[in-house]
Amino acid sequence: MDPRVHEHAAILVDWSARVDPEDNVILSVAEGVHDLAVAVAEALGERGANLVATYDSDELTRAYLRGHGDEFDPNPAHEQALVANADVYLRLGGGRNTTATADVPGPTRQAYRRARTEIREARMDTDWVSTIHPTRSLAQQAGLSFEAYQEFVYDAILRDWESLADEMAKLKTILDEGSEVHIETADTDLWLSIDDRTAVNSAASVDYDSHNLPSGEVFTAPGNAEGTVTFDVPMTINATRLQDVRLTFESGEVVDYSAEQGQAVLTEILDTDAGAKRLGELGVGMNRGIDRVTDNILFDEKMGETVHLAVGRAYDACLPDGETGNQSAVHTDLITDMSSESVLSVDGDVVQRDGVFKWEDSFGR
Amino acid sequence: MDPRVHEHAAILVDWSARVDPEDNVILSVAEGVHDLAVAVAEALGERGANLVATYDSDELTRAYLRGHGDEFDPNPAHEQALVANADVYLRLGGGRNTTATADVPGPTRQAYRRARTEIREARMDTDWVSTIHPTRSLAQQAGLSFEAYQEFVYDAILRDWESLADEMAKLKTILDEGSEVHIETADTDLWLSIDDRTAVNSAASVDYDSHNLPSGEVFTAPGNAEGTVTFDVPMTINATRLQDVRLTFESGEVVDYSAEQGQAVLTEILDTDAGAKRLGELGVGMNRGIDRVTDNILFDEKMGETVHLAVGRAYDACLPDGETGNQSAVHTDLITDMSSESVLSVDGDVVQRDGVFKWEDSFGR
Repeated sequence: MDPRVHEHAAILVDWSARVDPEDNVILSVAEGVHDLAVAVAEALGERGANLVATYDSDELTRAYLRGHGDEFDPNPAHEQALVANADVYLRLGGGRNTTATADVPGPTRQAYRRARTEIREARMDTDWVSTIHPTRSLAQQAGLSFEAYQEFVYDAILRDWESLADEMAKLKTILDEGSEVHIETADTDLWLSIDDRTAVNSAASVDYDSHNLPSGEVFTAPGNAEGTVTFDVPMTINATRLQDVRLTFESGEVVDYSAEQGQAVLTEILDTDAGAKRLGELGVGMNRGIDRVTDNILFDEKMGETVHLAVGRAYDACLPDGETGNQSAVHTDLITDMSSESVLSVDGDVVQRDGVFKWEDSFGR
Repeated sequence: MDPRVHEHAAILVDWSARVDPEDNVILSVAEGVHDLAVAVAEALGERGANLVATYDSDELTRAYLRGHGDEFDPNPAHEQALVANADVYLRLGGGRNTTATADVPGPTRQAYRRARTEIREARMDTDWVSTIHPTRSLAQQAGLSFEAYQEFVYDAILRDWESLADEMAKLKTILDEGSEVHIETADTDLWLSIDDRTAVNSAASVDYDSHNLPSGEVFTAPGNAEGTVTFDVPMTINATRLQDVRLTFESGEVVDYSAEQGQAVLTEILDTDAGAKRLGELGVGMNRGIDRVTDNILFDEKMGETVHLAVGRAYDACLPDGETGNQSAVHTDLITDMSSESVLSVDGDVVQRDGVFKWEDSFGR
């Protein structure tokens, strides 16, 4: 086996999920990620953890959902009990076809998500981490050869996370102390309130309230939103291409929207429930190791010189104790390139201009 | 997809497991059985059942067990809760290498099994069914081409189960009314008490207390055992070949044993716990559709003109209400060819001679 697979497994288990002996672990295995699953299983055995592996195949899900009608039992007891009794949930994404679920009807997909809200919440109460194993399908999605894609993935994952965490702490401090964020690009003029919110220094470890491997972003949960934002980084959601999504907010809610491509999927997402029209996340990508768009949100949203906003659910870690943020069955990230003609300000101070942070040497040149 | 895969899925879900709407189903997916898993998921969706798929890969288990020491937490709560809240457990066996776990140390394997006794019991409280998807690995184990093996498997599975159940009812009646079974072959002279026991007409459906697809055997749980039995049908257990196993019983317990091949594995099985040296099952193969040994217990033990005995755990269905039979972490079947030089008698009456039942036309000729 490629030794990088074992290194990936060790970072996932030790740095990211902080697995302890006797932890009850769920290992979610997509199609095409068998090798990583085997390496993680070995690492979990070595740590003395307890393992249940689930098979989260897109083709299996497609077949089940297409066979099923649109009425689902809410939160089936066996899955709920599995997750409620787990300490750690490790999701190994990958797959053999990123468009495997393209012909599942939208209403079925929405109903299935809504029926599993409590299971999803229980999963988020675990030390969960989402990562991917490089597959040929993801390489194709990225427009790369398999070899080049493996290089890209391991460059992003096998790194010194502590050092990146130190750099990201600077932005976290600014966001924690600030009240209002202003994002300006050629097509964007958006104000976001962040009063009383706590930013997450997302350093790919549950000890940083960070649940993605790779990570490398600082994110918070905005309150009110006013203005218009254009997301010019293309992406694929529910097996459909989205391009140049434009959202207009009034009093925190989407009042107008459009997309150059993929408007039907955008409508489906925004119509899922009331919270789907409000923001759950503002994230600032700070991982310059991720140097290209690969049409995979796990990587794209961490890319340096980008910001992203998510419609839907907010993460509790960003909110004052006892408060809950925006609730929704969806959490869909959309990304804006900030590398040129852009300004990110907090309370009137420019924090980043044309992709360069104010503490960096080339700022303002 | 091969239409036989969908037929197999329908028989599994409807005839075997009797899946109802809102049933909580666990689908256990081995390596190499993706197509059958997809077909079963579609059928479960159509029936309105709730689905959790687990990934039961031999390679993953091997890695986990080799990484782990020999001390396991008993019955981890997340897996226990998953199974305890399930109505149906469907095991899709297959795999890509029948010897994938050959280098897991015996003590580790034993400790793992012992630590999961309650989970295994909870699984047996569900409407569980074990079947296989034809894989190249199983074809190789059988010494057949992949195409020929597929024919063999579907001939055994896609059949008129109700009609076989009617024929098997004749032997069930004889065993239910009988007190003592005597098995004689050139190398076997064994007496088994079956007083008060209820035989199972194993017609591949939970409605018949039958949990294998294919099935086609009548089995019961013997009490006392006296004498010697030789199992001349070879098989592979824990990735090791067993050939000509010979067991001698006194007062129900194995007091002497040997094997031409695989004695170490036989020792490992018999030493698992106290119940592993006592019998849990006497089964009579009656499925003449299975016409050759394929070195897979699911098929071999159902083959016409054979009997099998299992050391280890007995099935409650064979015992009077409230009584429990032999308890053990193992249940290992061993098979004897009865096609020639053999007599099976119940209370002194010959029921089968040289593989022919007394109700068959060629009996005694």
